[in-house]
Amino acid sequence: MESNIIFLPIGIAVLGIIFMMIKANWVKKQSPGSQKMQDISKSIKEGALAFLHAEYRLLLIFVVLASVALFTVSYAVDTTSWMIIPAFIIGAVFSALAGNIGMRIATEANSRTAEAAKTSLPKALQVSFSGGTVMGLGVAGLAVLGLSLLFLFFVGQFITPNGTFYVDMTIVLETLAGFSLGAESIALFARVGGGIYTKAADVGADLVGKVEAGIPEDDPRNPATIADNVGDNVGDVAGMGADLFGSYVATVLAAMVLGNYLIRDMSMSAEVPFTDAFNNMGPILLPLVIAGVGILASILGTFLVSIKSNDAKESKVQAALDRGNWGAIFLTLISSWFLIKWMLPATMNMQFFGEGVKEIPSINVFWAAVIGLAVGALISVVTAYYTSLGSKPVMNIVKNSSTGAATNIIAGLAVGMKSTFLSVLLFAAAIYGSYEFAGFYGVALAASAMMATTAMQLAIDAFGPIADNAGGVAEMSNLPDEVRMRTDILDSVGNTTAAVGKGFAIASAALTALALFAAYVTFTGIDGINIFKADVLAALFVGGMIPVIFSALAMESVGKAAMEMVEEVRRQFREIPGIMEGTATPEYAKCVDISTKAALREMILPGLITIISPIIVGLVFGAEPLGGYMAGVCVSGVMWAIFQNNAGGAWDNAKKSFEAGVEINGEMTYKGSDAHTAAVTGDTVGDPFKDTSGPSMNILIKLTCLVGLVIAPILAENSNEAEIRTAEKENTIEVLQKEDLTKVRFTTNTSEESEKEKVVFYSEKEMDTNE
Amino acid sequence: MESNIIFLPIGIAVLGIIFMMIKANWVKKQSPGSQKMQDISKSIKEGALAFLHAEYRLLLIFVVLASVALFTVSYAVDTTSWMIIPAFIIGAVFSALAGNIGMRIATEANSRTAEAAKTSLPKALQVSFSGGTVMGLGVAGLAVLGLSLLFLFFVGQFITPNGTFYVDMTIVLETLAGFSLGAESIALFARVGGGIYTKAADVGADLVGKVEAGIPEDDPRNPATIADNVGDNVGDVAGMGADLFGSYVATVLAAMVLGNYLIRDMSMSAEVPFTDAFNNMGPILLPLVIAGVGILASILGTFLVSIKSNDAKESKVQAALDRGNWGAIFLTLISSWFLIKWMLPATMNMQFFGEGVKEIPSINVFWAAVIGLAVGALISVVTAYYTSLGSKPVMNIVKNSSTGAATNIIAGLAVGMKSTFLSVLLFAAAIYGSYEFAGFYGVALAASAMMATTAMQLAIDAFGPIADNAGGVAEMSNLPDEVRMRTDILDSVGNTTAAVGKGFAIASAALTALALFAAYVTFTGIDGINIFKADVLAALFVGGMIPVIFSALAMESVGKAAMEMVEEVRRQFREIPGIMEGTATPEYAKCVDISTKAALREMILPGLITIISPIIVGLVFGAEPLGGYMAGVCVSGVMWAIFQNNAGGAWDNAKKSFEAGVEINGEMTYKGSDAHTAAVTGDTVGDPFKDTSGPSMNILIKLTCLVGLVIAPILAENSNEAEIRTAEKENTIEVLQKEDLTKVRFTTNTSEESEKEKVVFYSEKEMDTNE
Repeated sequence: MESNIIFLPIGIAVLGIIFMMIKANWVKKQSPGSQKMQDISKSIKEGALAFLHAEYRLLLIFVVLASVALFTVSYAVDTTSWMIIPAFIIGAVFSALAGNIGMRIATEANSRTAEAAKTSLPKALQVSFSGGTVMGLGVAGLAVLGLSLLFLFFVGQFITPNGTFYVDMTIVLETLAGFSLGAESIALFARVGGGIYTKAADVGADLVGKVEAGIPEDDPRNPATIADNVGDNVGDVAGMGADLFGSYVATVLAAMVLGNYLIRDMSMSAEVPFTDAFNNMGPILLPLVIAGVGILASILGTFLVSIKSNDAKESKVQAALDRGNWGAIFLTLISSWFLIKWMLPATMNMQFFGEGVKEIPSINVFWAAVIGLAVGALISVVTAYYTSLGSKPVMNIVKNSSTGAATNIIAGLAVGMKSTFLSVLLFAAAIYGSYEFAGFYGVALAASAMMATTAMQLAIDAFGPIADNAGGVAEMSNLPDEVRMRTDILDSVGNTTAAVGKGFAIASAALTALALFAAYVTFTGIDGINIFKADVLAALFVGGMIPVIFSALAMESVGKAAMEMVEEVRRQFREIPGIMEGTATPEYAKCVDISTKAALREMILPGLITIISPIIVGLVFGAEPLGGYMAGVCVSGVMWAIFQNNAGGAWDNAKKSFEAGVEINGEMTYKGSDAHTAAVTGDTVGDPFKDTSGPSMNILIKLTCLVGLVIAPILAENSNEAEIRTAEKENTIEVLQKEDLTKVRFTTNTSEESEKEKVVFYSEKEMDTNE
Repeated sequence: MESNIIFLPIGIAVLGIIFMMIKANWVKKQSPGSQKMQDISKSIKEGALAFLHAEYRLLLIFVVLASVALFTVSYAVDTTSWMIIPAFIIGAVFSALAGNIGMRIATEANSRTAEAAKTSLPKALQVSFSGGTVMGLGVAGLAVLGLSLLFLFFVGQFITPNGTFYVDMTIVLETLAGFSLGAESIALFARVGGGIYTKAADVGADLVGKVEAGIPEDDPRNPATIADNVGDNVGDVAGMGADLFGSYVATVLAAMVLGNYLIRDMSMSAEVPFTDAFNNMGPILLPLVIAGVGILASILGTFLVSIKSNDAKESKVQAALDRGNWGAIFLTLISSWFLIKWMLPATMNMQFFGEGVKEIPSINVFWAAVIGLAVGALISVVTAYYTSLGSKPVMNIVKNSSTGAATNIIAGLAVGMKSTFLSVLLFAAAIYGSYEFAGFYGVALAASAMMATTAMQLAIDAFGPIADNAGGVAEMSNLPDEVRMRTDILDSVGNTTAAVGKGFAIASAALTALALFAAYVTFTGIDGINIFKADVLAALFVGGMIPVIFSALAMESVGKAAMEMVEEVRRQFREIPGIMEGTATPEYAKCVDISTKAALREMILPGLITIISPIIVGLVFGAEPLGGYMAGVCVSGVMWAIFQNNAGGAWDNAKKSFEAGVEINGEMTYKGSDAHTAAVTGDTVGDPFKDTSGPSMNILIKLTCLVGLVIAPILAENSNEAEIRTAEKENTIEVLQKEDLTKVRFTTNTSEESEKEKVVFYSEKEMDTNE
């Protein structure tokens, strides 16, 4: 059993994929509704796939270029393998495949949800949530399957019986990092491109449709309406899916890297190689197994998501989703306890930077995982507090809308800024706490635990846009009011889960980045990142600036793309007679095409900045400045992500408050009032914040750290020579730590002048030969 | 000569103060204009002094509390002296005095400038710039005088003939840090409190006056109009003055600390104590002497600021100011070359962190200073580019105003965000370059060189609000149009210099913080700040969040204070009959009082956060996490300062563009258009950005680092025990660096298990005894 444990996650992943297929088939079997509903659904589906296909073409170019770059790395550095290229490609393909499956089913599920809403609310929930489940299981299943299979294969390739386990395993994991890089590259396209797409279509549709032509949202006469609905799928389903796919894979990978580091620590302090029943790699396999078990827990959790009463309100639906979510989390937590006890040695010797080696009982790793789960949940609660309808911060924005757009904007900005306080304190506590329990392995396990129920998280996330689209389909096909009312209940719950999901996504991205950051240090073999060095400090500042620039570019991109959309819609109204009378069909596809092209064109510059900047910093200035750069990107990126997401979410709900009417200074105020107009301005500013630039930060910080991790082996080679410390006066003693160094060589230099000593690193093998 | 060099800066400082008095008398001798003008000027002066006095009362409480805290520190830690308390109080008093003098003369100069504008533009420039010069020389003169005298006194107190020079000098400089802390505390009150004051009065006056009552700006019927004018002086004159006073002192102090560190390096590498003709403290005295020479250069520069033609336009006035500015910079640069050659050894052995000791020729220090001056100038250019009338970024905001307030806001936010790119790259280059040339001493000298012409910078800065106020006086006393036209020319130039001045202020604050950061590391004796340690990384995140929270609080404070003002103005219009007819005088003083109280009340929370957070982080988590926290505050603070200042400046000028008319999509658009309304919204959002929260960042980052520096001795004591590194396996070798350690002790531990070695630190004296 123990020695074949790798087949456990593989098996569960396959099970997850099978369950996904069953769910997908079930959804497809539901009635798709009238011909009109099917037509609309088909248009959305085709638009979404058109975007995906355009994305794939651009992606192909990117993959070729990146492969050349990766080949150069593997050619230049002995310790890396060319197999990182297929790993990269497989990562990209798997993530794209998961997104493709999820988006297909989401676009199938929308009309079926609308149709189901004709019968009952429970049925509508079942259809829409099943659609979300397909997305969730597709992502989680493919991620774990890909990681496990590649790991198995690379272990067979690189682990040699006579080699040093740590060194060989490092090559395995460096190569496996290609899979993660491929996945995150897709996330860049899906999240950033998708984010630009969805807001360009949304703003474009609103500006001409609602404002100029005076027709309601989702009106079929608006040429941009299909593009708008496509945007929901492209941005919220595929974008979020790829984002979490990337986080999920990167977290597990980072935990595996740190597991390998832990094995080295244990081997070194015991002076004999570490052994256990799991082919001597229990700490490396643990994160994979927890991820697998998390899929199982998520599947079981989905059975808890159902309601019985047709008269249920939002709270009942929310409670059903919460039941599923907490059920899955609880099951994962229980299993983790057993897995940790089983797979890790009872006590482990861990290297704590600056504090030496400590004996850590395996239960500490469990506590680190608990911290990860707790902080993930608490950050979601904080997010909900700052962005929910009726909460104090949102009501404050509402109140400030009565004195005009300017005060609305100031209030919204302030809410976003203030929301960083608790989120960052929680995040800092997570770093501090999980490290105290179990070092950076603990930090990575905290992230892994948080991400373990990704399948469930994503199911809940993807359910929202499906319900939203179902409402659109109902509106466009003039279904009865009660249908729209039912989809509105689901949509409203979906809005809450979307906000919470964004909190989860940024928390997971931040913890993932942190785990990658720790893994980076072990790969480069530097002994820390000291910001008291001027170059490191300068890089920290430059890194801190990148998220700000990235956000600005993303925001401007939305503006440009929206303007193109506006012109196209105006042209159609002008040149195609009969659109407004409903006698002619607008050219929906043209609008979809414009959004697609603009989104992909506009994402190139921010994408390049994300990928190329760390390479330049690393190659020109070295491993430690790159570490400073990564930290700068993370710190600033987390801040700007929280700020933008929550400001945008709060503005959105401040505007929505007026729909049901809201009391300002003792007076009920409704849609159409001056205060509402001010709130609409705030919402328009918030749109790119919360759907484009804010969520893009997740990708920015993860991709920065991943690029760093992938180029780490080059930097490690370069820094071997540079990494020489000189002690002053009389004695020059070199205490060196190197991943493959088991013995220490020191030189005593008694010359008057202090001078640099070149110190050669010996790997264990070489040492043996030399001796 | 050499051994009495300290009397050079003292002498020049006294000379500067005498010159200031002559200028002040000259200004006072000018005709103050009609009785009405004098009345208005008097009201502004009284309002400004009322604010100052209220500030002093609050300050008194603060000084008492801080003194108790400082006493605790000096009592608890042997190596610190209680004399830090008088140093702190003197620092606060000197800064307050400088601000008081500057504000008095500025409020005298406004009506006199208006009166002078009746005769000619050259005369008006002369009066207003002389007013600014008084402020500039008051600040620079008192700063250098205070620093030099206290240094002289403390050297007499603490440098003992048989002691270790480095250790004794550290006590001198730790005590001198009190002066800097006192100065920066005043800056907190003046900049943050003043920033809230000025915008609360401005927004309050506009909301009721312009919008509700429909009366023009500066109309005497508006009860808040005097408060508005007081605000200009309180925020832009006293606030900016105290900010630069703080930067100036802190920069020189930090350079002195690093000079002391340099002396230690040289003593250690030569194995004999460092000696030179300057009482063995050339590197420590150099920054003080450069500051003194900078005052002289500024005085000479003021003679270059004059114009001849009465028909001169903005460009001529600007050219005159530039002449003075560049003249002063050039003179300082030339003198620095000679001073560096004279006061520093030809080559110096400097410790470069992680690279060992390097031989640095003294000319390198000059190059570092050149970098400081160049970067200061370039950052000002970048600031001007992003915020000037007619520049591409501002025109982009103008264009986006045509589609409404939302697009105007998005465009403005994007401009602010994008402006961080070049500014931060320049800043990073300054860190990197000056460090490469001459280590952290070079970084501190770069900052000192940049700050050396503070007197001139401030003269130019303070001239703006004087001209602005002169325009207000002219308006309120119905002076002829040509007077207003002339003051408008000066005001317009003043707006440009204000924007550039803000760029200079943030650049100086950032470099100052950096120098303090370096000084902090030497005081605590830690061997770097390693963000690969979880607690340090967590602190980096928490630090990064502080500027965001601080900005949010400051922005909200403006809103609250402005609302109180609005209600008071409404009350006066309602309860005092005849205001609108001009038959009754509004109660100006009530409005001044409200702004004063609100500003001081609202600054307490952000002020406490600034001061208490680093103390908590330091005492609870230790010296290295506090270093991480400081870095986080600096990185994030610089970003948010640039973002907010430039977004606000760009919005302001986008709005102003409409006054002369501007072409949007081929159509001339003017005041009163929809686009202009949208631009006004942007400007209202930008007001607290550029005048409250943005400039407050300067104080936040400097004060954070200063508080760290002051509590550093406590942390150093605590970390002595903790600072023990263990090397792995066979040999445990401790290579230790400690400020007062001249010899290295190492232990070899051949036991099987790696274990912690307690290592005792010997100071030179103890070593001698032990041997």
